[in-house]
Parts: sequence; C-alpha cells; structure tokens
Amino acid sequence: MVSPHVHSDILITGGCGFLGRKLILSLLARTQLPGRIVVLDAFPPSPPSTAISHDTVPIVYRTGSILDTKVLNEVITSSTTCIYHLAAVVSAQAEQDWNLGMQVNFDGTRAIAERCLELGIKPVVVFTSSLAVYGGEVVKNCSEDSHIMPQSSYGAEKAMCELLLSDLSRRGLLDARILRLPTIAIRPGKPNAAASVFISGIVREPLQHKQKTVLPVDEKTLIWIASPRSAIKALVHASVVPRETLVDAQGSRRSVITLPGLSTTPRDLIDAMVRVGGGDASLVEKKPDPKIEAIVGTWPGDIDTPWAKSLGFEVDKNVDDIVKIFVEDDMH
Amino acid sequence: MVSPHVHSDILITGGCGFLGRKLILSLLARTQLPGRIVVLDAFPPSPPSTAISHDTVPIVYRTGSILDTKVLNEVITSSTTCIYHLAAVVSAQAEQDWNLGMQVNFDGTRAIAERCLELGIKPVVVFTSSLAVYGGEVVKNCSEDSHIMPQSSYGAEKAMCELLLSDLSRRGLLDARILRLPTIAIRPGKPNAAASVFISGIVREPLQHKQKTVLPVDEKTLIWIASPRSAIKALVHASVVPRETLVDAQGSRRSVITLPGLSTTPRDLIDAMVRVGGGDASLVEKKPDPKIEAIVGTWPGDIDTPWAKSLGFEVDKNVDDIVKIFVEDDMH
Repeated sequence: MVSPHVHSDILITGGCGFLGRKLILSLLARTQLPGRIVVLDAFPPSPPSTAISHDTVPIVYRTGSILDTKVLNEVITSSTTCIYHLAAVVSAQAEQDWNLGMQVNFDGTRAIAERCLELGIKPVVVFTSSLAVYGGEVVKNCSEDSHIMPQSSYGAEKAMCELLLSDLSRRGLLDARILRLPTIAIRPGKPNAAASVFISGIVREPLQHKQKTVLPVDEKTLIWIASPRSAIKALVHASVVPRETLVDAQGSRRSVITLPGLSTTPRDLIDAMVRVGGGDASLVEKKPDPKIEAIVGTWPGDIDTPWAKSLGFEVDKNVDDIVKIFVEDDMH
Repeated sequence: MVSPHVHSDILITGGCGFLGRKLILSLLARTQLPGRIVVLDAFPPSPPSTAISHDTVPIVYRTGSILDTKVLNEVITSSTTCIYHLAAVVSAQAEQDWNLGMQVNFDGTRAIAERCLELGIKPVVVFTSSLAVYGGEVVKNCSEDSHIMPQSSYGAEKAMCELLLSDLSRRGLLDARILRLPTIAIRPGKPNAAASVFISGIVREPLQHKQKTVLPVDEKTLIWIASPRSAIKALVHASVVPRETLVDAQGSRRSVITLPGLSTTPRDLIDAMVRVGGGDASLVEKKPDPKIEAIVGTWPGDIDTPWAKSLGFEVDKNVDDIVKIFVEDDMH
C-alpha cells in the first residue's frame, strides 16, 4: 500500500525498466528535488539491489499493472504533480498480440488519464510515444509536421494515446508533454521484443559480450536513434518546458513533440563500435529477416524537427558519441 | 430480436438519422441488392411512417445503443458483410461531455470492431470521420496529406477511430474505408448540437421556414461542405472501391480518405439561397458567437484531395447546386 504523501509526488510507470531507472537517478540529481518518487512497474527491481534509495526523497516501489484500478488508485493521488508514463508493450509484442497491445498501451494510458480526471488533479504527464506513428511514403521525407500513418499496432496505439492526452491537455484537464522517441541505442542487457532490438545488439554484443549477433536488415538502412542520455535529458526537459510554448504558430495547443535524433545506419554504428570500442565487426552476422525489415522499413530514418529544437530539445552529435555513451554509462 | 440471416447483411448504425435514411434508399436503388439491411439507431424512425420497407429486401430496425453488447451481438452476425458506421455524438455535445463523446464515438466504434474480431468476419466497414481531425495552422493550407491535430474532442475521437480501424484493416482483420466528411449542407429538420449547424440554417430557415436564423461566424469564413447527395454517393462508392487501391505510393495500407468538398463562405451560400431559391437574406442575423467561432475556426475551409479524386470520389460543382439539391431533395 502506497500511503498518500503531502509533498509533490512524481510517478514513473515502467520505472524499473532501463530508461525508468536512469530517469529516477536523473531526477535525484536535480537541484529541485521531488517530494517523493513512486515507481510503478509490472516487475520488481531486478536484481532487488538495483532498487534506488535516497537520503531525503522517499522512493516507493509498487509492483503491479496499470490496468489494475486498485494499483492506480494507490500510485496516483491528490499529491501527484508529475507522471512519466513509460510503461508499454513493445512493438513486436503488440504486433503479435493485438489485444495485449491495446490493453496495456492504450487502455493503460487512458486509465491513468481517467484517474487524474477522477481526482481533479492536473499533473504534468510526460508520455513516451514513438517514431512508429509515422509510416508509408512520408518516412522517406519526414518532418515533425508529417502526417501519421502507423504501419504497426504499436504505432497505432501510441498515436491514439497522443490524441487522447492531447485532447485532455487542450481541455486543461491535464498537462501533456508527448515525446516521439527515436530508437534508443545502445540498450544494455537482454534483448526485448522490440523490432528495433538489433540496433543495440550490433554494438553491445560484439563489444560487451564478445558474442555473435544478427543484423536482420540491410546495413545501409537509415535509422533514427538517440542515446539513453539524450532521451533522459529530453524526458526531464519535457516536464519543465513552459506550457505556453506548447502551441503551434496559430496558437493552437500542440502537445506532441517529435524528438530530434541522429540519422545513421547499422553500417556506421558497426564502424563506430570498432573505432571507438575496438569491437570485432565479424561478430555481426548479416541475415535479413523480412518480418523485421517490414516493420523497420515503415519507420522514418530521418526526421526534420525544427520546432522541437526551438523548444530546447537536443540531439546526439554522432555515432561515436552513441558508442562512447554506452561504454561510459552501461557497459559494466 | 434480429434473427441471423443467411444472405449478406448490411448494417447501418445511426441509420434513422438524416444521412442513414438516404443511404438506405440509395442502397435499395442499386442493381445489386443486399440480402438484408439492418438499421441500428438509438431512436426509432420518427415519425414511424419514415421507416423504409422494400418488396424483396428485408429491412430490420433495431432501437438500441452500440454500447450494449446484447444489441451489437444481434445486429452484427456471421452474415454481416458491410457496416456503415454513422452513429456518433456530434461536435458541440462531445465538447460539452467528454465521457459521453469517448463512449459513443470511440468505445462504440471499438465495440463494433471487436464484435467483428470475435466472429472472425471481415466486413467492409465504412466509417464517417470528419474534417474536425485537422486543426491548428495546417487548416490554412490543408491537404489530404496534412498532419492531424484536432482542436475538439469530437475530432480527437474520430481520429482515434481512424487509427483503430486503419490498424485492423492493415492487419486484414476487417476492411476499413474511412471517410473524412466535409460539413454536410443543407440539412433539413431541426438543428442538432453540431457546431456547424448554422451552415444549413442560413439556407434552410429563410427558404423553407421563412424564419430568422443566426449566423454566429464571420460571413467570409471559409467553410468546407458537401451536399447530402455527394455524401451518400461517397459512402456507397467507399464500399466498392477496390481494397488494393487503398494504399499509398509506397504500397502501405491507407484507409483514410479525405473527401473532396466545396470551399465556400456563408456569404456565398446566402447569396445562392436568394438567387436559386428566392429566400430573404434579411432573415439571417449576424451575431458572432466566440464559442462557435473558436470551434469552426479550427476546421479547414479548403482541402486539396488529389488522391481521393483519383479514387473516383466526386464533389459538388458550386453553391447553387448545394441549394438546388436541398430544394429538390429535402425542402418539403
């Protein structure tokens, strides 16, 4: 049972994941500390020693589902002032099981929003959407103003959440800041069910585990990536961007921000892995997988993001930095 | 109780409404008759004499809610081959009551889709979306490829349905044909709670009822309209457009069609009303209403629709035709 707290609470869903953990550390490194951090995740911190504690900021871990009303009622209270909603079923999984994807990715987000409406609180809601909302011919010449046409259920669900949260934010019922994240690379640890998992694998496996790994798409495929550091910086920045700047040139509420990213290729990443980390490129086995190619091929490999940049969102400089950040932060 | 029928059934939700009724008549005028027409509406035909019957095609009226599982199970069966989903809560109503709009406009559409999944049928689903999915600065220079940024809950809900049905259609679980309708004018009968209701009023009231009516927006406001005849033609055409043509230039599934419309102004409509129908323009009282102006101002007044036109969707020629069609079809 998470007891209500008088101070301002930050809720992080999916907070035991890779990004969630980094986000907690980042929030604790800021000058202005939150009253409390509530971490909701379907799984407990693993291993338990990875649970984060802090001298002055209580950090409460709650294991449960965002689809469980009782759980949501505990983790979102009248003290909640900011929600980072990161919990999601990833792309390949949502494609395999439509019901699961709709439930976790869409119904879960809606349940969080409706809990806020029920309480009458208007927290800042930072929501992680994805480049997967784009699709079709626009991906060849894509900007933050391009129309969305998702070619995966994951992308469709994220886009529906964008619309839901944007509408509530426009109505002033909550304060949404929606980030379309590039593919985050390099991820440490075990591969997940995301179709983009190979992008991290081609650097991590040769470098960290000295193991073979598969590149299932053409090495010249354009990919749109951001380092975990950039992504976390963006998540925190999103929570403090003044609400009045989240409008378009006509003054209409615009809550969806397509994050700047780095446009590169698996080939360039592999080269950087060799150059910066001294890894063995021959460990990367080229083995095209039509299923993965079909999903990744519907994502933009480059996106023009002048508005996001004007809001102060930043981008990784080059592939060498992408590899360096992995070596410094996560290759242990 | 609607008993299952061996022949192919067409379901029309909202089928007792203005467009629904015309759609039934139009389907009955085709060479290829459906096995049966099932009409679902929250209200019975009013007056009862407006219920349509046919010599050879059974027409079954069912009064009930699309949110009622029992009702949906009755009206969608293994014989259902085509669904025209017109039922919706209109714009001003959805803006006033967010829950109601989400339930009827989004949950209702999802319930229909999930009933199809449950049965394993893959009917053609013709869904009426709206120009209200657009919003913000794009409305000044809008095309069928413009990005959506709804500035009303109605628009957001319609856009979410577009994504839901498009995704299921992409997966091959149903065959969606989504039409973003212009404002339909001229509507007969009583005004409804749509923010666009004045567009019909400024022609209908002086012409048919010789009564005063209010124009709540600037008379030079660009509006994007289609006659009921064009809309019905489009609905029927949508059901027969070959599925293989509903892809973009890259071959990606594209199920959303922004219908061609006529770009005009209240001023031009009033002039046509005088010119074609001999109505009295002085019955139109100019009385700006900031609330209505705010909603209508977020809708595009002109949309470039080359793809829709290439699919064979047609447009009204001019405002005189808009008034003539009202006089011929509905002013009785």
